[in-house]
Amino acid sequence: MKKAAIISVGNELLNGSTVDTNSNWLQKQLLTVCIPVVYTCSVVDDIDEIKNAIEYASKKADVILITGGLGPTDDDLTRQALAKYLNVELEYYPDIYEKIENFFISIKRPTVEKNKIQAYLPEGTIELDNKLGTAPGILYQNRKILIASFPGVPYEMKAMFDNCIYPKLQEFNAGSFLVVKKLKCVGVGESSMAQMIGDMMERNRTPLINCTVDHGVITLHIVSQAKDEKAARVAVDKDIEKLHSILGDYIYADEDLSLAEAVGRKLAQQKKTLSTAESCTGGLIAKLITDIPGSSKYFTYGWVTYSNEAKISQLGVDKNLIEKYGAVSSEVAAAMAIGAKAKSGSDYSIAVTGIAGPDGGTEQKPVGLVYISIAGPNETKTEHFLFGARNRDFIRLRSSQVALNLLRLNLCN
Amino acid sequence: MKKAAIISVGNELLNGSTVDTNSNWLQKQLLTVCIPVVYTCSVVDDIDEIKNAIEYASKKADVILITGGLGPTDDDLTRQALAKYLNVELEYYPDIYEKIENFFISIKRPTVEKNKIQAYLPEGTIELDNKLGTAPGILYQNRKILIASFPGVPYEMKAMFDNCIYPKLQEFNAGSFLVVKKLKCVGVGESSMAQMIGDMMERNRTPLINCTVDHGVITLHIVSQAKDEKAARVAVDKDIEKLHSILGDYIYADEDLSLAEAVGRKLAQQKKTLSTAESCTGGLIAKLITDIPGSSKYFTYGWVTYSNEAKISQLGVDKNLIEKYGAVSSEVAAAMAIGAKAKSGSDYSIAVTGIAGPDGGTEQKPVGLVYISIAGPNETKTEHFLFGARNRDFIRLRSSQVALNLLRLNLCN
Repeated sequence: MKKAAIISVGNELLNGSTVDTNSNWLQKQLLTVCIPVVYTCSVVDDIDEIKNAIEYASKKADVILITGGLGPTDDDLTRQALAKYLNVELEYYPDIYEKIENFFISIKRPTVEKNKIQAYLPEGTIELDNKLGTAPGILYQNRKILIASFPGVPYEMKAMFDNCIYPKLQEFNAGSFLVVKKLKCVGVGESSMAQMIGDMMERNRTPLINCTVDHGVITLHIVSQAKDEKAARVAVDKDIEKLHSILGDYIYADEDLSLAEAVGRKLAQQKKTLSTAESCTGGLIAKLITDIPGSSKYFTYGWVTYSNEAKISQLGVDKNLIEKYGAVSSEVAAAMAIGAKAKSGSDYSIAVTGIAGPDGGTEQKPVGLVYISIAGPNETKTEHFLFGARNRDFIRLRSSQVALNLLRLNLCN
Repeated sequence: MKKAAIISVGNELLNGSTVDTNSNWLQKQLLTVCIPVVYTCSVVDDIDEIKNAIEYASKKADVILITGGLGPTDDDLTRQALAKYLNVELEYYPDIYEKIENFFISIKRPTVEKNKIQAYLPEGTIELDNKLGTAPGILYQNRKILIASFPGVPYEMKAMFDNCIYPKLQEFNAGSFLVVKKLKCVGVGESSMAQMIGDMMERNRTPLINCTVDHGVITLHIVSQAKDEKAARVAVDKDIEKLHSILGDYIYADEDLSLAEAVGRKLAQQKKTLSTAESCTGGLIAKLITDIPGSSKYFTYGWVTYSNEAKISQLGVDKNLIEKYGAVSSEVAAAMAIGAKAKSGSDYSIAVTGIAGPDGGTEQKPVGLVYISIAGPNETKTEHFLFGARNRDFIRLRSSQVALNLLRLNLCN
């Protein structure tokens, strides 16, 4: 099986200025031609650093894609590094320079002396046409290795990859197919899940199952490679079926959706509306719901009732209830949910009240104690959770995810 | 000068599933202690690949930070790779396991057999406390090199870096005193700012001024390294004074505060209260305000009036106003702000209505058009902004930051 490595060149990728998104994009493209990326790195604008990176990558991979360092300024050094790696000279091509001049004429800007360097290529390489900018790419290929060097500007790189390299890679790697699917899960911890699915996560197994976690949401990546596409697909589908039977309701989507989007789709399908009444999450649940384009179809009203006064005046929570049980209580959570549902006329409502910390905790009601209530067409259910004395962001985000998940389970039944 | 390398571990970073943002964050932190990152790479979940990456990085750097691969599942292999690199065995520590068990007890989840692996450390290393999750980090240090291994989960990694490693790096890079101060700015673009402060940003200057940008907020890092502490401090203070005289009101804090926190402090100092009425930002402003502990002192009521109906029933916006000017208009923004202020009895209110896209734009009212209104004790000011047809998250976050900044300027006068 062919393997790939990606090298990103540029000081800005190492001093915190720029997040490298090119590599992620290239990884996705390479997956579709069954050439997994085994290594990516970012290096500074320095000839030897770039050359060393190419050398190191060539020991791991058959395809090396390089982005960045092809511009006209003195800190663009990929061209020179590639020549040094190949142990050849740079050669000047007047016809390439003519193309660069024509490009500048087309955008009504003058060519400057600095652009001349972009008409040089390492001997034994060919240029990759750049329809969207001045810097041509560079391709080196022999029977064993393919090295392509792209500009760092994302849209120039992407167009050049699609036009010049993608077809070559399909040729280069004929003969196997790769299928990747994702399952999104919530409501279960990573270690419990690993225990449940057991040896399906073994490293040498096919399909290979990887697991990533983000704030209580677990993504299972099921990856299968086979000689023929159907075999790869069947193997993945079989695994997905098996995982569904093991994990049941923990799985909230068979594709890459956020929990809020999955809940939103269910609401839209069932033509139901939602309102929110938030205390400790302070608007975060409404924010997550309205992150989704088109959420106005099902999300109508939201309240951030941070003060007791707001809970009373806006949601109609009984003052005595707050006095008797406290604002952080099952009774007040339920009254907030019922009030939000009534005031907005929505089918469902979510209410959250809790102690997000760092202050405000007591022995009876510690930081991390959160009450979540879901009011639906037939009933109102309230539960409490102990998220522990962790940081405020954690408690708020976890509360929001749990609330969305409770609503999801409600919509499933 | 000490140099650093960052290794990110995880198949998901190489198969297009996840963009590595940890490295970027770590790069920014390392800059502030004068340890530039010269190399970053991502490698798959494989003991030898991780070990080789550590070996390669150790030739380039004195500080190696590793993220990922410390979880409880079979694909978490950083622990083993580090042991292989150090040529030592893994050793089991019952007291670490006890901490893990206690963590699970605090969140009322069972510990499972799989978690046991997290209580193992390579001989000769020490654990880094993880207050936010189960996986402890790992630290190896000798006179020449410092290797720290963090969980991949961003908030766990960040807290661990801040608590355990940042102070060590300050020591590690000693022999000279380092003073780092931050100025936080808003309301000005990066290139305009660079033009204004001119050669203060030159690369060879002392103090060194670095600039990072995050959603419209610019952080200037003023870094001075000197043989004696007083000299370093005086140089930084002189620069800060100079920057204040150049940048004026663009500077909102002389320390590392979020804009919401700076605004919150002003409200608390002036004993004023705030309410919010959000349409397109959908709760994000309330969320940003309530991110701050103690915000209940000044934040009282928030509304997410996503539907016209909610604007009318909750904020008392005149129905005819919406019909005549549209929900996205200066008139409706002002009515929302005035309504929120009146209903909540707050001193100030923020209202936002706009088109966050991707749909809903027209020629007159394109995606990215946002009206922001601030109602204060004496007057209501409404402005419109064109954020361009960028993505929804960008428009919503930028709108929220601009709204908070308008309130800040209001509170300054």
